[in-house]
Amino acid sequence: MPEYHVRLAGNDRAAALKAVARKKKTAAFREITGGVTASEGFVAGSLWCGIKAENAEKHDLALILSTEPCVAAATFTTNKVTAAPVEISQQHITSGDVRAIIANSGNANACTGARGLRDAIAMTTATAKALGLERRQVLVCSTGRIGVDLPMTKIAKSIARLPATLSREGSLAAARAIMTSDTFPKETALEFPLDGKRVRIGGIAKGAGMIDPTMATMLCFVTTDAAITPRDLERALSAAVEQSFNRITIDGDMSTNDTAIILANGAAGNRPVRRTTEGWEVFQRALNEVTLRLAHMIVEDGEGVTKFVNVHVKNAASPADARAAANAVAKSCLVKCAWFGGDPNWGRIMDALGYAPIALRQDRIDIAYDGVSAVRQGQASRTSFARLQEVAARARFTITIDLHLGDADYMVYTTDLSMRYVELNMGE
Amino acid sequence: MPEYHVRLAGNDRAAALKAVARKKKTAAFREITGGVTASEGFVAGSLWCGIKAENAEKHDLALILSTEPCVAAATFTTNKVTAAPVEISQQHITSGDVRAIIANSGNANACTGARGLRDAIAMTTATAKALGLERRQVLVCSTGRIGVDLPMTKIAKSIARLPATLSREGSLAAARAIMTSDTFPKETALEFPLDGKRVRIGGIAKGAGMIDPTMATMLCFVTTDAAITPRDLERALSAAVEQSFNRITIDGDMSTNDTAIILANGAAGNRPVRRTTEGWEVFQRALNEVTLRLAHMIVEDGEGVTKFVNVHVKNAASPADARAAANAVAKSCLVKCAWFGGDPNWGRIMDALGYAPIALRQDRIDIAYDGVSAVRQGQASRTSFARLQEVAARARFTITIDLHLGDADYMVYTTDLSMRYVELNMGE
Repeated sequence: MPEYHVRLAGNDRAAALKAVARKKKTAAFREITGGVTASEGFVAGSLWCGIKAENAEKHDLALILSTEPCVAAATFTTNKVTAAPVEISQQHITSGDVRAIIANSGNANACTGARGLRDAIAMTTATAKALGLERRQVLVCSTGRIGVDLPMTKIAKSIARLPATLSREGSLAAARAIMTSDTFPKETALEFPLDGKRVRIGGIAKGAGMIDPTMATMLCFVTTDAAITPRDLERALSAAVEQSFNRITIDGDMSTNDTAIILANGAAGNRPVRRTTEGWEVFQRALNEVTLRLAHMIVEDGEGVTKFVNVHVKNAASPADARAAANAVAKSCLVKCAWFGGDPNWGRIMDALGYAPIALRQDRIDIAYDGVSAVRQGQASRTSFARLQEVAARARFTITIDLHLGDADYMVYTTDLSMRYVELNMGE
Repeated sequence: MPEYHVRLAGNDRAAALKAVARKKKTAAFREITGGVTASEGFVAGSLWCGIKAENAEKHDLALILSTEPCVAAATFTTNKVTAAPVEISQQHITSGDVRAIIANSGNANACTGARGLRDAIAMTTATAKALGLERRQVLVCSTGRIGVDLPMTKIAKSIARLPATLSREGSLAAARAIMTSDTFPKETALEFPLDGKRVRIGGIAKGAGMIDPTMATMLCFVTTDAAITPRDLERALSAAVEQSFNRITIDGDMSTNDTAIILANGAAGNRPVRRTTEGWEVFQRALNEVTLRLAHMIVEDGEGVTKFVNVHVKNAASPADARAAANAVAKSCLVKCAWFGGDPNWGRIMDALGYAPIALRQDRIDIAYDGVSAVRQGQASRTSFARLQEVAARARFTITIDLHLGDADYMVYTTDLSMRYVELNMGE
């Protein structure tokens, strides 16, 4: 059904992101190229080790290294079925002296038991050896099929060859090497003034399947040459993830491997950012912007996606209610199918709000599509169906739901549910 | 994509239901024809009033009447966005002297505000007038599109003509008249001995879209000629709904109109069933069987369904956990897509269990497909992929998930997620 598969083209995407950037008054941030290697003192590389069967063009092993000592922070999946690399990285992140990230695609090393843990450790050991580091200075990530053992002989051999691929231009190749069913590599970078210095934040990410708030099936690696205290880096990453990756949903499935990591090496020479310093706000805003851009790219590249929909809940009784309401709408199969068909079926949105575990007065609910009123006080507004159809036919639109019960807001970024999604996920 | 749309044929269904009946040792129950009019003292009728645009062959108004005084019980949607007829029926059920049910399809009379409430009342008033009853003796149900006002002039005129259609053979026509996107009418009836008398329980139902536990988008009308106290009838219905309609899920969307009603007129002449009498257990078992059969028919007739899957969670830490685990698996888009493709992708089941809000030890989980082990202690079992594929290719199978943490069990009846489902729900 390629006729339904109106993928958002690269140019549309760039234009849309620029529009977002404009709205957010990110004037102080300059978009630059380079992804994770845009930050001073970072190199990246990749190669094919044979997990992805196709051919040697499809890299499946990526390495990111800070050439200088750095501090690190990370957030991990809250899924109770955690992959082996998540468990090992959770241990290593506490060492406080992380320098490198080794990642493979094509195999999640999840549900692999004791052997999986040994393999994840072996990946960090091999990487540390190749780079002259300690094992605990290496974080490890895997993404791909669940329940299959890693081909460790191939991987170990390839890791030994990885340092030779490291370069200041390696980000895009690394972004490609972590792709699974993604159709385009995801990277972004910003430069901005901080404490009189030029500072950079850059990142790469992968997504595509099992994407849901509370950490998507998703890997995200961010670097910055800002100097920042470890505790504040952790705070900044948590806040950035909360307003980006935790607000995207494609299919409501949360993966076993989700990981977002940030490394900060201070190469920019600024005085360390602290929560009390002037630079804190600008650093946080820049990090938010980088993670939000990557999160949007993940949504746009969701499996079978033809529409990008912002679900904005306003004036809920509590922040938890705002979030639950937005998620109920964004995860409803019926709502998502209607979006796919360009059907402004607000009855399904009302229905989803009704079963969300929230305080609700149905006669107070207002719903609008890109500002065009569809529901007033729980009933059809006077807007013609044709006018609503016009909005629902757009490749991007915002559903605004005003509950008129309090002052809590929440926004979720989501997609339609297409026949192509089903086709992509029905297996071999 | 008709090639994927392997609807379960009527004969397969009948055979499968018979197999279920055999397993459940329902030997005391004799399957009879007649649906809601199988019970003595009940008549049903239907006609076309013009809500369904197609043609006069497609009835959209149904009436069920007990010709003798009876007691009634009902359960309603827990959706906080409730349709007008649900609100009116909730009031009328408390009158304790219900005799008739008026129902329309094609329009849900939901999100229709004060006008909707007036219309629902008008439907009961017109029906009471036509039958010589009080308004409060009539329950009203609607199913269909949300947010559109009912064409009350047409409906009121047609209701006046409805009594003329009432007959002891009217069940099947009434079952057809409440269909929306259902592809076959759903009715069943059982006869069994109770207190030395022959007693009957019969029912009709409709489903197809917005089907989810905690009451599906679904109407179910059950009659019985057993004598039973009102309080015990309510108890019996609650227990029956809990083990049937509350355990089915197709798309995870719970509707605004769900209603299950039972009328009992005592025409069989037994001494009233009470919880303390001998007949209680057999009556409950028979009612369970009737509601379970109707629930299974709803699942089989789910939009775009090609597979019927039982998800059986065993040995969870608590009943709430068992239920949450089964629902997480049954509602996962990724799991359901894999079923559609016949892909025994147990990794997605592990993943869904991991994000369910339950106590979990991933290294204790066992998963089997129709008894064939796929996962042992959280890892791939030794079963070949081909062997698992063989089971996953079946039109019906059971996924058994043993959590090895306690002794709580739960079963959910669900379906795959097909391209046809998306196509059916993408709107006009």
